Amino acid sequence: MMIMLFELVFIGFGTVARGLAELLLEKKEELKSKYDMKYQVVAISDIRVGSILDGRGIDLRKALKLADAGENLESLPAQRKGLSAIETIKESHSNAIVEATWTNIIDGEPGYSHIKTALSLGKHVVTSNKGPISLHYRELMRLANNNYVRLKFKGTVLSGTPAFNLFDGALAGCSVSSIRGIVNGTTNYILTEMEKGLDYKKALKEAQRLGYAEADPTMDVEGGDAAAKIAILSNVLLGANIKPDMVKRKGISSITKEEVLGARKRGDRIKLIAGAEKKDNTIKAQVSPVPLPVSDPLANIMGVMNAITFETDCLGNFTVVGPGAGRRATGYALLTDLISIAKS
Amino acid sequence: MMIMLFELVFIGFGTVARGLAELLLEKKEELKSKYDMKYQVVAISDIRVGSILDGRGIDLRKALKLADAGENLESLPAQRKGLSAIETIKESHSNAIVEATWTNIIDGEPGYSHIKTALSLGKHVVTSNKGPISLHYRELMRLANNNYVRLKFKGTVLSGTPAFNLFDGALAGCSVSSIRGIVNGTTNYILTEMEKGLDYKKALKEAQRLGYAEADPTMDVEGGDAAAKIAILSNVLLGANIKPDMVKRKGISSITKEEVLGARKRGDRIKLIAGAEKKDNTIKAQVSPVPLPVSDPLANIMGVMNAITFETDCLGNFTVVGPGAGRRATGYALLTDLISIAKS
Repeated sequence: MMIMLFELVFIGFGTVARGLAELLLEKKEELKSKYDMKYQVVAISDIRVGSILDGRGIDLRKALKLADAGENLESLPAQRKGLSAIETIKESHSNAIVEATWTNIIDGEPGYSHIKTALSLGKHVVTSNKGPISLHYRELMRLANNNYVRLKFKGTVLSGTPAFNLFDGALAGCSVSSIRGIVNGTTNYILTEMEKGLDYKKALKEAQRLGYAEADPTMDVEGGDAAAKIAILSNVLLGANIKPDMVKRKGISSITKEEVLGARKRGDRIKLIAGAEKKDNTIKAQVSPVPLPVSDPLANIMGVMNAITFETDCLGNFTVVGPGAGRRATGYALLTDLISIAKS
Repeated sequence: MMIMLFELVFIGFGTVARGLAELLLEKKEELKSKYDMKYQVVAISDIRVGSILDGRGIDLRKALKLADAGENLESLPAQRKGLSAIETIKESHSNAIVEATWTNIIDGEPGYSHIKTALSLGKHVVTSNKGPISLHYRELMRLANNNYVRLKFKGTVLSGTPAFNLFDGALAGCSVSSIRGIVNGTTNYILTEMEKGLDYKKALKEAQRLGYAEADPTMDVEGGDAAAKIAILSNVLLGANIKPDMVKRKGISSITKEEVLGARKRGDRIKLIAGAEKKDNTIKAQVSPVPLPVSDPLANIMGVMNAITFETDCLGNFTVVGPGAGRRATGYALLTDLISIAKS
């Protein structure tokens, strides 16, 4: 077995990237002994905590500590400081980029440019950024193939919880005809709280207080986030070529407490379901609140938990349940992507 | 990429083996184009439908049709006929054996001898046979390693539904600290029926009528089957070295309808849970009926469905839900094992 040495660049060093950094430090020995994978971080570039590049390697433990304390990384020794993200990608002697900047599902920027630049230069990319992947999947995959590198993005759907990556491994040879999932933890949390008798506004406030919902919750509550995720799932698993704005969607902001409790009385639960189905070679994808009988595994997914049911030709229905967000869970998604590149 | 050509021998050609045969025929082109895997069946040996061996290849479609009709395979043209299982393994020019004879968790025979013979001769083995794997895991893995071949047994737990094989792929780098699962469909079906008001005996009869329970249901209802499966899970995922009889176990045959309905009234569901936990480097494994709150994903697994919750260091709790038995689902487990060998 050949050793894979990753010379890594972090573009974006927020929560998720730091989740990966933590796991890389924690599992350094295991990665080497079990997966023949070694790494060295040669650059970190982040608009908040600064930008450092050093071909001889950066002390990841120190960088993580500084970033977690909200301090600037440029106090660390480094050959070059203050480079932009694009400059960092271009000027680092790296073979893999961790793209973990913010999500933008209008045009995918700045992640889209970061990923394109990296792939064009023959660098592998791992990312949890839904923007560029949901908008430019085919183009970016083609670019990766043409440059003989890999683009991996497990973290865009269900964080590190196995989802489409199952079909490369444990579900190899199995094909999917439909997908139904709870892929947004914020809305599932709100619906769970509404079952307890809270109205929508109060449940949203509670979600915001706990950090599950953003100050502007539109992307979550109107189904935009779920639409991006079902677009990604459809493109990867059903061979579709759709973008988030082609997904028919309805959010949960107009759902009343009475509707939620009424469904409960009938033995159902209202869930925001992202679904996609292949029929006669066309793919239909949608996001909408649906009353599910409690016998449906998805009906019992509570709080911020996520789940997906895949309808397959070999197994019938198969469901995964796990976290859909979080520093460690999403950092772990990036780690599985790196391990999968190291193995191939 | 190198093409992997399997020269396959089927030892046992019952339901599960035929499920694999069906999938091999159905997916022949896909296996070649997507996984660089080709196959030829060179022998089939079964105590009921007969034994044929032909180095030039056997017509699998015809063999499947005959076996499904309950007819003897020896009406097919073949170089040799009537060989025993062991003779078939020894005398065939094959590189992989599909071991799918009956399960025996007392001494693992005859599967144990079949697998040992095949591995010693440098042939890969894929099996869904819990007997030899739950009783002789370490010895057989050592034998496989010493002969530079693979022993794969996905189908022993949860049929083709991803379980321990996740940790080679989608959950690589993640470690497990505890396992809790519903791994026996028969008992889960009986408990589900008892919730509807049937007493144990009636529910068992219904399970027998539908083919979910055997005429002698002891292995299922007293937890023996679940004990073998949790032993396998513990050995593979927790590094344990336990055998089924070291698993503390209690079955469901003494559970009354009143207990089941009483639990429901308290908002719980009684489930037969197979569990294992690693603590201070010792592993405790047990099988017993447990009342679970309905907020537990395992509480909502109904009928013959199976599920496992893994507690992991990277993701926290992660649950899979899918079929635990069935011709196609278990045949698919054997196919994933073959694909995984072809890839490595």
